[in-house]
Amino acid sequence: LKDMRTVSWDPEAPALILIDQRLLPVEFTLIRIETVDAVVAAIRDMVVRGAPAIGVTAAYGLALAGLRSGASSRQAFLAEMEQAAELLRSARPTASNLSWAIDGTLSVLKANQAQAVDELQATLLEEAERLAEADIATNRRMARFGADLLENGDTVIHHCNTGSLATVEYGTALGVVRWAHEQGKRIHVLVDETRPRLQGARLTAWELEQLGVSYELIVDGAAGSFMQKGSVDAVLVGADRVAANGDVANKIGTYMLALAAHDQHVPFYCVLPTSTIDLSLQSGDEIQIEEREPGEVLSLRHNERALAPATARARNPAFDITPARLVTAFVTEVGVLRPPFRDSLSQALEKASP
Amino acid sequence: LKDMRTVSWDPEAPALILIDQRLLPVEFTLIRIETVDAVVAAIRDMVVRGAPAIGVTAAYGLALAGLRSGASSRQAFLAEMEQAAELLRSARPTASNLSWAIDGTLSVLKANQAQAVDELQATLLEEAERLAEADIATNRRMARFGADLLENGDTVIHHCNTGSLATVEYGTALGVVRWAHEQGKRIHVLVDETRPRLQGARLTAWELEQLGVSYELIVDGAAGSFMQKGSVDAVLVGADRVAANGDVANKIGTYMLALAAHDQHVPFYCVLPTSTIDLSLQSGDEIQIEEREPGEVLSLRHNERALAPATARARNPAFDITPARLVTAFVTEVGVLRPPFRDSLSQALEKASP
Repeated sequence: LKDMRTVSWDPEAPALILIDQRLLPVEFTLIRIETVDAVVAAIRDMVVRGAPAIGVTAAYGLALAGLRSGASSRQAFLAEMEQAAELLRSARPTASNLSWAIDGTLSVLKANQAQAVDELQATLLEEAERLAEADIATNRRMARFGADLLENGDTVIHHCNTGSLATVEYGTALGVVRWAHEQGKRIHVLVDETRPRLQGARLTAWELEQLGVSYELIVDGAAGSFMQKGSVDAVLVGADRVAANGDVANKIGTYMLALAAHDQHVPFYCVLPTSTIDLSLQSGDEIQIEEREPGEVLSLRHNERALAPATARARNPAFDITPARLVTAFVTEVGVLRPPFRDSLSQALEKASP
Repeated sequence: LKDMRTVSWDPEAPALILIDQRLLPVEFTLIRIETVDAVVAAIRDMVVRGAPAIGVTAAYGLALAGLRSGASSRQAFLAEMEQAAELLRSARPTASNLSWAIDGTLSVLKANQAQAVDELQATLLEEAERLAEADIATNRRMARFGADLLENGDTVIHHCNTGSLATVEYGTALGVVRWAHEQGKRIHVLVDETRPRLQGARLTAWELEQLGVSYELIVDGAAGSFMQKGSVDAVLVGADRVAANGDVANKIGTYMLALAAHDQHVPFYCVLPTSTIDLSLQSGDEIQIEEREPGEVLSLRHNERALAPATARARNPAFDITPARLVTAFVTEVGVLRPPFRDSLSQALEKASP
């Protein structure tokens, strides 16, 4: 399972194959997806989640839309792809990588618009495959830069899931832990369970078990108390979108975690591909925050088990904004970025552009 | 149910009657307790929880130990009571009110050691009844002082459960909300679910439903994001122990909540009877923090439903320390205490002593 890709392609069908992350760790199930509507549903329902993983999934979604298209003219085909792109873009609003992958794929289409429909179909699939491979390579580069920030014997706090399951393979923040572990450094991870969907308890714990990395699960509210006791050397998180000034949208709870790290002088590292950086937004105030259905808070897994009175109401913002002032550094595939972030982020994007 | 006491006494049996808080809100069940060992178990297993409630429960526990005693001499009786007191004291280490109630009851015994065994038995029960009545009166006084800090239309964040269920009746921090509501102020409560035991989702939501107070449930990690949006006017929490310098031990997650309130300039109020103040401790560093069994994090209710891989490990500190610098004011039965807390806390204790 360790080397199974979160997002993969079956050229025979053709179909996109996803690990169904809603059922882990109880069941390991693969889902075959053959239409763009099903891709949109899988992203929205969080069959697949994690900013890099949903970016690549969307690119495969466009490839599927292309292969399923009955359009006879280039023009009709391109119009259909624009429609599919809009559908995919609306699946989840916060992660930058989703629109980044869609925009990138559309510009590749545009650059090749002289091609025949069957060539355009092949181009879309090639682009998705390229993004998938690039994601893995990017993760491994980030992991190497990030692992240099960790010492043998370090304890780190990790929020949500940023491992193989949040990417095509390897991971962002958890990729850093993985590489440090593979280097022979002894790393202990305090895993935030990450309510409401428990990505930490369900997914990160599951990945760390398989990697053989030492960990203990904690409730999100306990992270500060472990830092107070002086037993934490770093906090590692991913990101869903980073604004030009360094403000970070990430899984709900990240802001409070960053506050505790800042208060206790524990370095707070965000690990992300440069595709997560969105220079079109001046600050976190401009980042759209998805609010998900209250049922995720009120019950475990689709109302199977109520956690609150039957008539209870809930609010469920999926992300929060961590101000740049609380971030020690960004770890990207082009290196570790330090403040002032307005400069280092834009330089990183220049360096990363092909 | 609204006027049911969390801790009450059946003089016929004799027995202590507790609402079983482990089953709420699914089941409302009363437990009859007839021995001191059963009282210890009920406190340890959190049939009853909340610092004021476990203080009064322990006093009734001593009364039960007295009534069940077969001692024929005063001396043997007093020795048995000392033993029972040690048992009760060890049930949970962090809440100040537990040892406060036990110490208070033991000194009443000592002051009356000339009494015959049957008189001592009556004295113990009278003392427990007096503490129960005093708790209710104390809560109502705190509620009045605290409600003056809230305006019509305010939204407050509340952590854990500090209502009727955490006391004999009425509540501490939630008592403030209740009184403001009874005064006709429109108050909206964002209820932290409070992992791992979900006292917010299960108990506070249940109490607010019955009181008709407007509320929405949120995950603990979301509190900061609501404060960031400017939609929160105050944070209200209780306390399990307050050191001489104003450091507060309270339910895990309180420290991170206080950091967010401080960062967003939202007033952070701790509401507690003066029995929670422990001047013998110079700072929070000296407060003993209970670590509970990992099963509370790894599964919901006694392993019925696993939240993490079967082989996962967890850490489960039940409380954390909020430094005094993050506290705006303490609301007690003798008034609202402002910094410098070393002075205002000791003055409050003098004012409160009978």
